[in-house]
Amino acid sequence: MAKLLIVGTVAFDAIETPFGKTDKILGGAATYIGLSASQFGVESGIVSVVGGDFPEEYLKMLNSKNIDTSGIEIIENGKTFFWSGKYHNDLNTRDTLTTDLNVLADFNPVVPKNFIDCDFLMLGNLHPSVQMAVIEQIPVRPKLVVLDTMNFWMDNTWDELIKVINKVDVITINDEEARQLSGEYSLVRAAQKIHKMGPNYVVIKKGEHGALLFNGENVFFAPALPLEEVFDPTGAGDTFAGGFIGYMASTHDISFNNMKRAVIFGSNLASFCVEKFGTERMENLSKVEVQNRLQQFKQLTQFEIELS
Amino acid sequence: MAKLLIVGTVAFDAIETPFGKTDKILGGAATYIGLSASQFGVESGIVSVVGGDFPEEYLKMLNSKNIDTSGIEIIENGKTFFWSGKYHNDLNTRDTLTTDLNVLADFNPVVPKNFIDCDFLMLGNLHPSVQMAVIEQIPVRPKLVVLDTMNFWMDNTWDELIKVINKVDVITINDEEARQLSGEYSLVRAAQKIHKMGPNYVVIKKGEHGALLFNGENVFFAPALPLEEVFDPTGAGDTFAGGFIGYMASTHDISFNNMKRAVIFGSNLASFCVEKFGTERMENLSKVEVQNRLQQFKQLTQFEIELS
Repeated sequence: MAKLLIVGTVAFDAIETPFGKTDKILGGAATYIGLSASQFGVESGIVSVVGGDFPEEYLKMLNSKNIDTSGIEIIENGKTFFWSGKYHNDLNTRDTLTTDLNVLADFNPVVPKNFIDCDFLMLGNLHPSVQMAVIEQIPVRPKLVVLDTMNFWMDNTWDELIKVINKVDVITINDEEARQLSGEYSLVRAAQKIHKMGPNYVVIKKGEHGALLFNGENVFFAPALPLEEVFDPTGAGDTFAGGFIGYMASTHDISFNNMKRAVIFGSNLASFCVEKFGTERMENLSKVEVQNRLQQFKQLTQFEIELS
Repeated sequence: MAKLLIVGTVAFDAIETPFGKTDKILGGAATYIGLSASQFGVESGIVSVVGGDFPEEYLKMLNSKNIDTSGIEIIENGKTFFWSGKYHNDLNTRDTLTTDLNVLADFNPVVPKNFIDCDFLMLGNLHPSVQMAVIEQIPVRPKLVVLDTMNFWMDNTWDELIKVINKVDVITINDEEARQLSGEYSLVRAAQKIHKMGPNYVVIKKGEHGALLFNGENVFFAPALPLEEVFDPTGAGDTFAGGFIGYMASTHDISFNNMKRAVIFGSNLASFCVEKFGTERMENLSKVEVQNRLQQFKQLTQFEIELS
């Protein structure tokens, strides 16, 4: 059984969308990644930090999904990272209302002993120095290292980010971030430049417009499922990444053809995430639902044409 | 051999993009539709109007593609419709600099006798009353009627537009126009509402993000080919529509499965159109190039997953 290590935030979110508003609920990149990857039955563990205010029931819920939380440090006299945001009517743009780093400000990640030998490593969106610190604690290079990041780190920690990007196999970023990172408007050219920065595989997430997977001359496109309603986009990108690495870890096959399937599963799982507030949908998602939606993805994209 | 009738503008365009700028060159919806459909070897004819200033060489070029131009009325003492625009750096938005309707202002379309019995009818973007006048001249309903339109007609001729939309099988519009026409933000819901206005098939063009084909509960997605460079997007939507109806006419099969192939061909041909200014690429496009690009579309979208 492959071991998957996930590094990222475990947090409180307060979310407002045109459909409603939440109090502080469970959030964080590692949370969404872990829940999504748990669909594939892999043995996974999270490295993160929370405060004494973090409810034990959340940890228990993660454990119930076969996610090891021994790497989530609890700072008893600290407070858990808190983010709040408000989505605009189109749900594609949002304003951040609050970012309280709290215990995250001084986070020194420690990989638990039982995950030092992980086969797959997912570096969720975090300070690039934290991502690097995790890489450095793992003596034998994992089979696949995937990094997610965002424009904030490009604006503020460029040099550290470039260093860690150079160490990974796969980077997942959104289209605007790919443009910022590469200085190229065309996503094809952006991927070419990002390849040169290190990653052999570049996944560009385009939200409701799907995702592109680049590997040199090879390109694959996974659409987003057209939905009647997007309720809350929070965590969709992390859920995509979790589906991607969860599928890769469960199959233990890092070929390009298998990565195609992995981005389809990433898009599949993200399409569930946005159906309810926060992690609610992901906590209650069954394998049957995922399989049925896979059938929808096939119908959405597969066609037969004889080449003449 | 199926007969395809195309109604739409034949025009002069002057285009400015970040890559350069043209004088008055050949343009117009019917021109792009005709050139695109000509790839499929169907017998097609254009109904349109031009002025005495329209070069005969353009008509001859169209004739050389097996496009009948006897339905293009020439008003000797009139001037050809002229549009000029300037694209912004992202090439997704543009400013219209000039729209001189000229001979188009009093256009009374006349379907030539040899196309009264057309099997396929493409109503290119034009005043909805002109589109309706063409439908009314055809005594036996064609096998498939496709309509393209734009926000301008929604703003200015709503009632006439709704009437003609009710008469067609397929509507092709872009995402913003689908939202405007339906009052729904979700494209799934927009398509549902537009179905109720008449068309059994709704094609929503999303430019660089591909196109969606809706037929009741069935949805299919054709991606746009990721390109290193988009040189000039003018005519891409018309080229898409021309590829769609050209393929449908050449196969004479109006099933949903065949429409999937038709939107793939639409996207395929549009990906060529944007590679050069104006109609240049479409005038010099070979069947081999189209077939090779079809292979790229397969690689871009096809995947194998066993459903459990």
